[in-house]
Amino acid sequence: MYCRNLREMINLNPIQRGGIIPKETKKVIYEFWDGYSICDFCQGKLDEIEHPNIKHFLEEVAEWLNIDFVRVTHGAREGKFAVMHAICKEGDYVILDSNAHYTSYVSAERAKLNIAKVGYEEKYPTYKINLDDYKKVIDELEDKNKNIGLILLTHVDGNYGNLNDAKKVGKIAREKGIPFLLNCAYSVGRMPVDAKKLKADFIVASGHKSMAASGPIGILGFREEFYDKIAKPSQNFPKKEIEFLGCTSRGLPIITLMSSFPYVKERVKKWNEEIKKTRYVVEELEKVGFKQLGIKPKEHDLILFETPVLDDIAKKDKRRGYFFYDELKKRGIGGIKPGVTKEIKMSVYGLEWEQVKYVINSIKEILLQF
Amino acid sequence: MYCRNLREMINLNPIQRGGIIPKETKKVIYEFWDGYSICDFCQGKLDEIEHPNIKHFLEEVAEWLNIDFVRVTHGAREGKFAVMHAICKEGDYVILDSNAHYTSYVSAERAKLNIAKVGYEEKYPTYKINLDDYKKVIDELEDKNKNIGLILLTHVDGNYGNLNDAKKVGKIAREKGIPFLLNCAYSVGRMPVDAKKLKADFIVASGHKSMAASGPIGILGFREEFYDKIAKPSQNFPKKEIEFLGCTSRGLPIITLMSSFPYVKERVKKWNEEIKKTRYVVEELEKVGFKQLGIKPKEHDLILFETPVLDDIAKKDKRRGYFFYDELKKRGIGGIKPGVTKEIKMSVYGLEWEQVKYVINSIKEILLQF
Repeated sequence: MYCRNLREMINLNPIQRGGIIPKETKKVIYEFWDGYSICDFCQGKLDEIEHPNIKHFLEEVAEWLNIDFVRVTHGAREGKFAVMHAICKEGDYVILDSNAHYTSYVSAERAKLNIAKVGYEEKYPTYKINLDDYKKVIDELEDKNKNIGLILLTHVDGNYGNLNDAKKVGKIAREKGIPFLLNCAYSVGRMPVDAKKLKADFIVASGHKSMAASGPIGILGFREEFYDKIAKPSQNFPKKEIEFLGCTSRGLPIITLMSSFPYVKERVKKWNEEIKKTRYVVEELEKVGFKQLGIKPKEHDLILFETPVLDDIAKKDKRRGYFFYDELKKRGIGGIKPGVTKEIKMSVYGLEWEQVKYVINSIKEILLQF
Repeated sequence: MYCRNLREMINLNPIQRGGIIPKETKKVIYEFWDGYSICDFCQGKLDEIEHPNIKHFLEEVAEWLNIDFVRVTHGAREGKFAVMHAICKEGDYVILDSNAHYTSYVSAERAKLNIAKVGYEEKYPTYKINLDDYKKVIDELEDKNKNIGLILLTHVDGNYGNLNDAKKVGKIAREKGIPFLLNCAYSVGRMPVDAKKLKADFIVASGHKSMAASGPIGILGFREEFYDKIAKPSQNFPKKEIEFLGCTSRGLPIITLMSSFPYVKERVKKWNEEIKKTRYVVEELEKVGFKQLGIKPKEHDLILFETPVLDDIAKKDKRRGYFFYDELKKRGIGGIKPGVTKEIKMSVYGLEWEQVKYVINSIKEILLQF
């Protein structure tokens, strides 16, 4: 009932490749898997626990992201909601990009905010966001006397894996004096991110998506200017911060995030190699009829392919759309959505070159069969 | 750095005794410890995933708690905030008991609500809440034309382990037409709880505190009457519920909660035996100078002792208050707050009778040394 059978497979699901935990972390799990296991020596504040050393870890993360403060959340979405809830007023506008994750919308809805969208420079096939339009959308809202509470940009989106030039939006936001949140669910933990350089006031990151952690867990980084609002203490319990309901990730996930952190810092340094692998996959699979959507050449490991060649086979094969999932599974490859053949999403992040080649050859072999 | 060394110890910390995971659950962890491991076959809604069968599990939990609907949260506090945020208006009053957990206050603060407190029938030594006073506090607020958004009762509190007669408050709430939330962080998963019988509109429970799960994870149960507010879908993404930001516990914790559930259902049936153990501990330790605070006889496993006898020793021993922690540790017993000797909090929940006797004898032995 509970067996996933993916343990020995090559998993190509982009949402999962950045969350695979290293051996060192697996060992630590045995010590901390009981509920409330991190609270043995707590003095009342999660981010100040020294055994295990959460305090030191968070200082390290803040330094690594080059941002003033860091808190632990249950994930990127919980970080986005916390920021919106803490710094915006009901009815304020949040400006976000058209590739924003659904949780950016839902967070804004939960915080009772209005949404204004920044569109594309081009839709098909690159779906590139027109970053200059942030200025235009701000001006339009200001002309209508609307209050803008937050500017949100998806650093790398989960559909096309497009990397946005965050600094451009950061500059616009800083000039206009509007707080700027960068959603780094697909970037922090995979590639280098420097909050100060990108002029981000807030960074949200995802442990289970991109920081090799067992979720749900995330990071919220913020600038000192916003400390009083984000870290506001409870009137009744001054050690407890309101937006985090006192403590957030009070258990195993924070341990896995901490324990994977040295591994994550190292892998981020090899980002160029990951891009090479990704571009190689695109190059090879475009030879056999796949077409990469999103910005070219790839600047992130998440690849969306348009795959008419798979769709043609699905029309003939008795397994219909499931043939591809099925044939990959036979070859020990998983993580491609079952039944879908018009478009496929994949990533080879963190795989060895040998595995990358095996994946490419397997796909070519499957296509040759038909 | 990360080793807890508590694995082979008898842990007496009441906050941890209900969250120790069984063997069956440990095995399942190996399959699901990577980030987003439960999302392989998701169709867009966490509580409808059938592989692993979260859908069926949640239906079982709803039946077990005798409540109409159930959702997964990150913990009891997140459940309380979700309810307050969804059904109350800014400035509304929440009425809560004087033994309420700090997160009940912080949740109310985060939801921008006012707080009114129900006091004690007696303070020292029982700290028994005057449940009839809920009526009085309601009347007083109504007389002042204040809007009451929610009535909250802590089923069993974390200081004295006092069990409240929730039905009494449930009746008052139903008569007055005010929604009633029962905080079951210390009850659901340890002892039988029937939401309909107790007239609770909302139940929050904690996986890591009392349901043998690896946290953070909780359960929110609610009556059909409140479905539209609690489970309100996003305008932009109709499959995603706003108060849960789409999906809450997207990883390992939900797997451990599910996998421990058969074990939890069984242990709840043995609640009477747990009460026997608890009362035996009180009886034996009161013979040597401990004094149980809270309602007598015990109706819950969490025991708070006033321990002047330990305090006297601390004044003489060179280890000061740490002697007790130290002496227990030598005997393989942990979970008593280091350095504290005026009062100690403990629980023998889930221990074998032999272990219970070992704990009692160890404490007696320590006292005899001085």
